Amino acid sequence: MKDWIALNMTPGVGPRVSARLLEHFGSAEAIFDAPRRDLGLLRLAPETIECIVNRELHDRAEAEIERVRKLGGDILVLDDGVYPALLRETYDPPVTLYVKGAWEECLDRPCVAIVGSRRCSTYGQNAALMLARELAQRGVTIISGLARGIDAAAHRGALEAGGRTVGVMGTGLDQIYPRDHRKLADEILKHKGALVTQFPLGTPPVSENFPYRNRVISGLSLGVVVIEAAENSGSLITARLAMEQNREVFAVPGNITSRNSFGTNYLIKGAGAKLVQQWQDVVSELPADIAAQMLPPPSRKTKRRGELLDQLQTAPADLSDHERTVLKLLNTDTPKQIDSLVESTGLSITQLTAALLTLEMREMIRALPGKCFVRKL
Amino acid sequence: MKDWIALNMTPGVGPRVSARLLEHFGSAEAIFDAPRRDLGLLRLAPETIECIVNRELHDRAEAEIERVRKLGGDILVLDDGVYPALLRETYDPPVTLYVKGAWEECLDRPCVAIVGSRRCSTYGQNAALMLARELAQRGVTIISGLARGIDAAAHRGALEAGGRTVGVMGTGLDQIYPRDHRKLADEILKHKGALVTQFPLGTPPVSENFPYRNRVISGLSLGVVVIEAAENSGSLITARLAMEQNREVFAVPGNITSRNSFGTNYLIKGAGAKLVQQWQDVVSELPADIAAQMLPPPSRKTKRRGELLDQLQTAPADLSDHERTVLKLLNTDTPKQIDSLVESTGLSITQLTAALLTLEMREMIRALPGKCFVRKL
Repeated sequence: MKDWIALNMTPGVGPRVSARLLEHFGSAEAIFDAPRRDLGLLRLAPETIECIVNRELHDRAEAEIERVRKLGGDILVLDDGVYPALLRETYDPPVTLYVKGAWEECLDRPCVAIVGSRRCSTYGQNAALMLARELAQRGVTIISGLARGIDAAAHRGALEAGGRTVGVMGTGLDQIYPRDHRKLADEILKHKGALVTQFPLGTPPVSENFPYRNRVISGLSLGVVVIEAAENSGSLITARLAMEQNREVFAVPGNITSRNSFGTNYLIKGAGAKLVQQWQDVVSELPADIAAQMLPPPSRKTKRRGELLDQLQTAPADLSDHERTVLKLLNTDTPKQIDSLVESTGLSITQLTAALLTLEMREMIRALPGKCFVRKL
Repeated sequence: MKDWIALNMTPGVGPRVSARLLEHFGSAEAIFDAPRRDLGLLRLAPETIECIVNRELHDRAEAEIERVRKLGGDILVLDDGVYPALLRETYDPPVTLYVKGAWEECLDRPCVAIVGSRRCSTYGQNAALMLARELAQRGVTIISGLARGIDAAAHRGALEAGGRTVGVMGTGLDQIYPRDHRKLADEILKHKGALVTQFPLGTPPVSENFPYRNRVISGLSLGVVVIEAAENSGSLITARLAMEQNREVFAVPGNITSRNSFGTNYLIKGAGAKLVQQWQDVVSELPADIAAQMLPPPSRKTKRRGELLDQLQTAPADLSDHERTVLKLLNTDTPKQIDSLVESTGLSITQLTAALLTLEMREMIRALPGKCFVRKL
């Protein structure tokens, strides 16, 4: 453990270099046991090599562990068996993870990241609050970056719902940034949330560290929801990195006249991000077993109702005559083509399409490719 | 011609019934020559049969032609050789089309429909104005429904740009609806636009006629852009019908907190509509030969610049060092995988992704499946 922490604190060793070292030597231990010559082959700065060979930071690593424990935190390392599995699977995961709070319970739940512009609009803020609240209410842990704007709204939404939220920092665990988010960080911890960072204690806010922070945000999550992102913004890069980590990427659309929504609309249009109108749109893309837990009543209730309906050949009372006619003709097993429905209903294609659309939006039927329709269970 | 017009005016003969009659008898002439018995097999109302057998409306059809010509219009019929080809190809096209104005020149150009809510927001109105203006400027004819809200904004946008626009009516050619759009209709005609309707003179606004009007709107167009549509709105039905006519369907996204954007966001999320941020997003989905005419300078200019660049191994001056490095490594023929770019640039995956994203948004490179990238011509 000390080796990992020392490695992480070594000057000149960022996530990329440590990944290169690990690939070459296999473990933190082996890196520190390596002869100077072998280290020299890896294009490291001379002071980095000195630092490793002389184990200059091992004492400081020990002190670091002490200090983190005093802060009530802990340090996870890549091979300690408790390091978050989802993050570990990613390309170049950080070798250490400083954690504080109920990180284990938070990360045991399905995690979804909500990120976006620091300079967001009221719309973006409300959308973040709402989505975070609705997802957290259903047991999703909301991961975000503790930044101003969308990030803060996402954390707050989760807190309002009495849910869990994790703040991933681009600074040391003792350096809350921005400073006026110290109260937010305290509240996250107080409400069984957690703080996480890959950076040693005392690491100040430095712009080059934030992209690494973003990869931890998406690395810890099953999916990333982007809410407002301007052109060329950090949030767009986060979305791309998340895609490279094979995470689901979601975006909340917005008015095309709003600069803040340029990036999110672009992600939907050009990068395959899923459009999110409501929390269900996120949950339905999560792994099936997780989604099933969170979308419970609709499927179960409709199923029971469906069986009855099939027997009685009736439909909910508020359907129009056309809708009722169409619904009766559909069953759950054999898709029916729209032309055959025109035939058997005697409705015009316009009337039929209207009825099908209503039934689809009420989630009573499902449209399949080739203009075919089936009843939903 | 008189047969077609009489058929269209026959009570009980709407687009569906006339399609059934045509399928059975082959032509308008044959329908009027059919024995009463044969007509009886088609489940027609008794007065409809009387009307056909006795050619009751042939005199009125003659008068109708006269009256339309006096109004400065004309009547097209399905097999007259000038009936709009795109509309003719659709399922159940109207048998007659009353036209006024420069309809032929309008429909000879690429046509795109812009439709949406009658009760739209300022945002929707502006988006419609802007898109219509930008498309019309480039020679696209804007088709819409002459209704309040988005429709009117679309017509006005085209007029402002000095472009062509066609108003498709759900009433008779002499019954502008809503009435206060008479000025708009006049302006459309004055500026080499056109009015089109399938309904006989004097047909008042009746709600069941508007869905048929909507099918003519999409039937005349290569694609349909929906700007603002509430849940269960007519515009959503228009979009579905357009899909069934194999038209491209586009939607302009909007804030998820706006009722007016519920339907358009839904179309993008659930129905495969293409998201539109700007006019290029529409044009790029039109048939390649048409799109090529309208998106001229970028491709030609960059090509010439590209050749020079390839020789000189230089790049535009405002690129960052990372972007320049990445661009140099890419060529137009062999896609490069992101991992190999990490190798050869020495950049971190974060830096690399940021550079690739910028180059992609500046349309200098193209992302291919499998995290591969090529330079654009």
